[in-house]
This record gives sequence, structure tokens and C-alpha cells, in this order.
Amino acid sequence: MVELRAVAGRIAVAREREADQPHSPVAAFGADQPLRLDAGVELNPFQVAYQAYGALNADRSNAVLICHALTGDQHVSNHHPVTGKSGWWDTMVGPGKPIDTNRYYVICPNVLGACMGTTGPASTNPRTGVPWGLDFPVITIRDMVQAQAMLLERLGIDTLFAVAGGSMGGMQVLQWAASYPQRVFAALPIACATRHSAQNIAFHEVGRQAVMADPDWRGGRYFAEGVSPHRGLAVARMGAHITYLSDPALHRKFGRKFQDRDNPTFSFDADFEVESYLRHQGSSFVERFDANSYLYLTRAMDYFDLAADCNGVLASAFKDIKTRFCVISFTSDWLFPTSESRAIVHALNAAGARVSFAEIATDKGHDAFLLEEPELFQIVTGFLDSAASARGIAKA
Amino acid sequence: MVELRAVAGRIAVAREREADQPHSPVAAFGADQPLRLDAGVELNPFQVAYQAYGALNADRSNAVLICHALTGDQHVSNHHPVTGKSGWWDTMVGPGKPIDTNRYYVICPNVLGACMGTTGPASTNPRTGVPWGLDFPVITIRDMVQAQAMLLERLGIDTLFAVAGGSMGGMQVLQWAASYPQRVFAALPIACATRHSAQNIAFHEVGRQAVMADPDWRGGRYFAEGVSPHRGLAVARMGAHITYLSDPALHRKFGRKFQDRDNPTFSFDADFEVESYLRHQGSSFVERFDANSYLYLTRAMDYFDLAADCNGVLASAFKDIKTRFCVISFTSDWLFPTSESRAIVHALNAAGARVSFAEIATDKGHDAFLLEEPELFQIVTGFLDSAASARGIAKA
Repeated sequence: MVELRAVAGRIAVAREREADQPHSPVAAFGADQPLRLDAGVELNPFQVAYQAYGALNADRSNAVLICHALTGDQHVSNHHPVTGKSGWWDTMVGPGKPIDTNRYYVICPNVLGACMGTTGPASTNPRTGVPWGLDFPVITIRDMVQAQAMLLERLGIDTLFAVAGGSMGGMQVLQWAASYPQRVFAALPIACATRHSAQNIAFHEVGRQAVMADPDWRGGRYFAEGVSPHRGLAVARMGAHITYLSDPALHRKFGRKFQDRDNPTFSFDADFEVESYLRHQGSSFVERFDANSYLYLTRAMDYFDLAADCNGVLASAFKDIKTRFCVISFTSDWLFPTSESRAIVHALNAAGARVSFAEIATDKGHDAFLLEEPELFQIVTGFLDSAASARGIAKA
Repeated sequence: MVELRAVAGRIAVAREREADQPHSPVAAFGADQPLRLDAGVELNPFQVAYQAYGALNADRSNAVLICHALTGDQHVSNHHPVTGKSGWWDTMVGPGKPIDTNRYYVICPNVLGACMGTTGPASTNPRTGVPWGLDFPVITIRDMVQAQAMLLERLGIDTLFAVAGGSMGGMQVLQWAASYPQRVFAALPIACATRHSAQNIAFHEVGRQAVMADPDWRGGRYFAEGVSPHRGLAVARMGAHITYLSDPALHRKFGRKFQDRDNPTFSFDADFEVESYLRHQGSSFVERFDANSYLYLTRAMDYFDLAADCNGVLASAFKDIKTRFCVISFTSDWLFPTSESRAIVHALNAAGARVSFAEIATDKGHDAFLLEEPELFQIVTGFLDSAASARGIAKA
């Protein structure tokens, strides 16, 4: 059984606090600025929490928007206020890093529906005084991007020099290019797709069922009842985590090695290292993430289908676009395989867009975009340098 | 939420009855014939339930042993006593079928640890009068095969003409060849491996955690408490089921099609057909399978490592073997990919064994071994025909 330790309880309380009062700047939007959601309803009031790094230049031309993935947040390259760990992309973003905060002004908003300060199911519903839970409307990737566009207007940034992100972040990058082509100079969609595949929807559905099967989920009202579906969420995370890695990487890292023993125990203990590793992934995740947010964000990914918004013709999503694209995939990523990235490239080609494409050889699977991948860093550095020259952004 | 219907409750009761008093012949072994398990303990008494089809010939040379997979049972080609459905391999086994019951005497035992009449955690522990639950010893593939060997001795069958099975069944086939090479004339390991990979152990562990996270699991004592961890088991099955299929097959079968609607509902209902399909897989499985059995059988697969029993040299497992092998894999099987079958073939080659190998092109994934696959049927028919001639078994 995946059990939370006592310290985890305190961390969970810290996380719950972040949902309304985050350790991040917040842009609040009142009743006069509702978010018109794809679900056909208006959300108001709402807020967007974000982190920013570097300095906006005089002509406001050096802003880079980072879009985070399903279980990410705005804490790209600072210590996380709940876990105390380093930012999730601090290898990529920072002074002298590929996304160089000496040169670019980097902003990362927490996405709509998440639980680190941007409005989502863990936020307090002002009409009831308790967390939204399942009363929160189901949101889409387009809704997330619209909220980000409102944040940038609030910050006085008309045009982004670049938008970058991997996985669900990459979906937002593509949606940015489709929704606001004239506001994006360069786009870096990494390890993503223009629509969620049947297999990926299936994996998400298993995760959601794991959460909803936990009696402590209480129809999404666990907050009010002082419980948390941490067992179900841990199972969801464990299953998802396998899909972020790869068979060869798991073999290389763990193989069939036993954990702290030489022989099997003939029990259901975590005999194998890979079991112990997965259990840790599950139990540490539930400390920092809200179960309902997990439902909403997976659902938003399931619904993502850029071509469907254009009568099935993907190239139409990018018609006459001037944005420069750099599409990146990883050979061992089976969640968003290279074929999905090629489909993006083909659509961009058909739309006459400017696009470069790189498939990076690695055994690290989907999570490669988060890891030390020198080739990824070189490609991102090179693409941004070239685009920054074209944009006339001064060197650091 | 995956909910059991009322009728499902009745089916579950019927299944529980099968654990001790199955609708199958049973070979009972008393205290004088204990099963010496790899875990270092003796199991006694115990019983093996089995189904048989066709007739044993005069010189007892035409017996074919079918080994079933994780969630299979002995009901290969008769209607299932609990679900009423056709046998799980009735396309393969029967009069005039590839494993022709007009020519061969076909036996399929329920494996040790399962829940359809062979002793397992759902069986009544004679020392307590209640089901074994987690007091049942953890068993291995080799233990299963040893129990099958005792059944065959009881039936007076010294030598098997053939042993065939897919997935966990294929593991048993390989173990038969390794444990009792002189008692197996021909072996058909399909879609399997000589050891469970780290990724496969990981998927199993997620399934076990899903079961054990269900409060109705009650530390494995759910029987005694009148409950059942059906929600956890359904989640486990849903996750596992994805691994039995393939990305292309899911795309072909479901794609992003909505279930009985034209537009998304913006809810957590089963909007997509693939979600609805998976939920059905989960809820129908829990009607016919015992949750503890699921733990034990996945554990047995995790522990399987034929080379480890031979100081890491796989070929030693098959030293001087006279058995003829036909190894079969499927191109889209990512649970037991072709590389695993090639490893079997290489080891057999190194041991100087007689082996043929076929990789069948299909998008149906791991489950292809259970499905209508004409090429599979042709290969099995041809291999058995040739071996039967060599063995001097009369044509049907």
C-alpha cells in the first residue's frame, strides 16, 4: 500500500494553501473580464499565477512564454514552494542556459485547472466559499491559452518572442500558434501532438478511474470532508509514470534487480527496484498535486484536437502563419511518438510555414524533454539564437 | 465509476463456488503428495481442475497440454460455467481446428493460484475453513508446471506430444521444456519471454497497487468480510488491457470517436468510445476473476526468469533438448515484443535445439494470440502436422 508519511500531510496542507494564495505573482480578473470557455460557460472571477525570470527589454520584444506539462507548474527555475525541489526546467531556463534569462524575459503561468494558484478545482469557489471540486467547468487547452493571453495583455506584452513547452505544454504551444499566430514570433512544440491518441485517452481514463474509485474521492468533495484520494491518485501516477519512460530505459536503470536483497521474498513487498521506484513516484506525487486537477488536466488533453477545429484539415490551423517553428521529438517516446511530430511538420509544410524538425536519439522516453539532453539544449539554443537575431533582440 | 450490476453479483457468487467445486474434473492430491514450492514450503492438500477434449490414443502419444494465460482458465473450447461465453481458444482448439481434437487429446489445467478450481487464494484453506487469501504461499511458474506434471502422472500420461500456450501460458511452455525436456515432444511458446521485463513488472505492480489500494481488499480477507475490491481490480484490468492491444489497433477501432454523441459533453462521462470500451473490460472482468488470484499470478510472472535458474546462461536451460520448438511472436506486441522471442530462439540455437520461428504481421498487439489470425492458425497446424508425423500419430 502506498501510504503517506506524516510529513507528507504537512506538505499537502502547504499545497492546498497554494491553490488560492500562491507563492507567485497573481493576475486577478474580475467579473468584468470573464473567461469564455469552450464548454459554453463563463468563468469569473479567476486568477492566473505565474513566475517570471529575467527582464523585459525596452521594446518588449524578448518575452518567452513557457507552457508547463500535466503535472508541472509555474516553478520553472526556482525552488518549489511546496516540495523545496529545484524548478522542473532549471536545466533549460536560467542565466546562460538554452532559454537564457540574461537575454529573454521568461514567463511561466500555472495553467487553468491546475492547483498552484491559477483558478482550478482546488481553488475556492467565491460563490460557495469552498473549493470548486467538480463544480469547476471542464476546460480545454484552448481555454488555458486564452487565460495566458489575458495574462500577457495584463503584463503589457503584445507579442511573444517565443512560446515553448513539452507534452501538454507543447499542445499549448500549438494552440498559441493556431489561436494567436500574429502574437508568436517563434514556437517550440516538444514531444507533443495535435490531438490525443486513442491509446493516450485510454491511459488517462485508467488514471481517472483510479482516482474516482478511491472512496476518499467523495465525488470530488474530499476537501470538505477532510480526506484525500491519495491512494487512487498514487495508482494513477504510477501507471502514467511508466508511459513517460521507455522499456529500454527501465531495463537499463532497473532491469530485474532486487531492492536491498539478493533473493525474492515470495511476497507482495517491493522486491524489485522498479517497484520501489514506482511506489515512490506515486507517494511523492500525491503530496504536491490535487486529485481533481489531475482529472481536469487529463481531460483537457483528451479533448485536444487541433484539426477538428478546422473541419479536419490540420494545415488550416496554421494558414498563412509567419511564426518560425522548431518541432522536436525523441526516438523512444511512445506516448507522443515521432510520427505525431511529423504530422505537425507536414501540416506546417502544407501551410507554407517556416519549420525545422529534430528527432533526438535517446532511450529516455517521453520524459527526455525534462532531462539532461545535450542535443536538445543545443537545438533549442541554436533555434532561439537564430530567431532572436531575426527579431533584433540584443545578445546577453 | 465502474459499478457492478445486480446480475454481476450473482455471477460473482457462481465464480466463488467454482474455486472449490468447479464444473470441471478435479485431481486431488492429499497430504502424502505435497507440492514442494519454490518459496520453500509444501502445499498440501491441493487440487488441479482441468478440462479435456478428444480421446487419448492407445499408445498415449497424442496428448496436448494447453497452458492458459494470466486471466484465462481451463475452459479452452467449452462454454464458460460462470460467464456462459465461448471458450477462450475455441478458434484454435476443437474438431478440425489447428489443435485438432479429432486427432489430439487436449488437456488444459487451471493454473495453481488461479480461481477456477485449482488451489489458489480463493480456495478454502482446509486448516481454517475460510479462503486462503494472503495466507496462500506465493507461487512461481515452475510451481504451476510441477502441479501440471503431477496431474499428468495421475492421468497416466508420461509424455506430452505437445505443450502450447501464449503469454503466461508461453512461460509455462518454456518451463515445461526446461523442467521436463524428455516429457515434451513439441513445444509452442507464443507471445512470451524467458523473463518478465522491468516495464512489465512495473505494469503489474500498478495493477496490484490498484487492488490493494481498494479499502474493500481488506488485506486480502475480503471474502470473510462479505465485500470485494471490484473497483481496484477493474482499474487494474483496464490498465492491463491497454498493454494487450496496440496503438494502431486502438486507433483503427476507436480513434477519437465519441460514444453515442456528436460533441463532447465537457464532463467525466465516457465521452470517447475507447473509454466506454475500457470501462466494460474492467467491469466484466471483476465478475469472473478473484482479486487475490490476480496478485498471485502477476507475481508469478514477475518472478519468472529462466536464465537466472541457470547462472544467467539461458541456453543451459535447454541443454541437449530433443524437443521441437515453434516460437511465435506478433509485430505489434509491445508487452512481449519479437525481440523477446528472438532471445528464446537464440538460446535454443545455442543449445542445438530444433526450432522454427515466425513473426506474424498484425496490428492487434499481444492479444493477437487469442484472436482470428489465419497465419497463426496455418503455422500451428503445419508445425503440429509435421511433428505428429514424426511422432507417428495417426491422422484424424
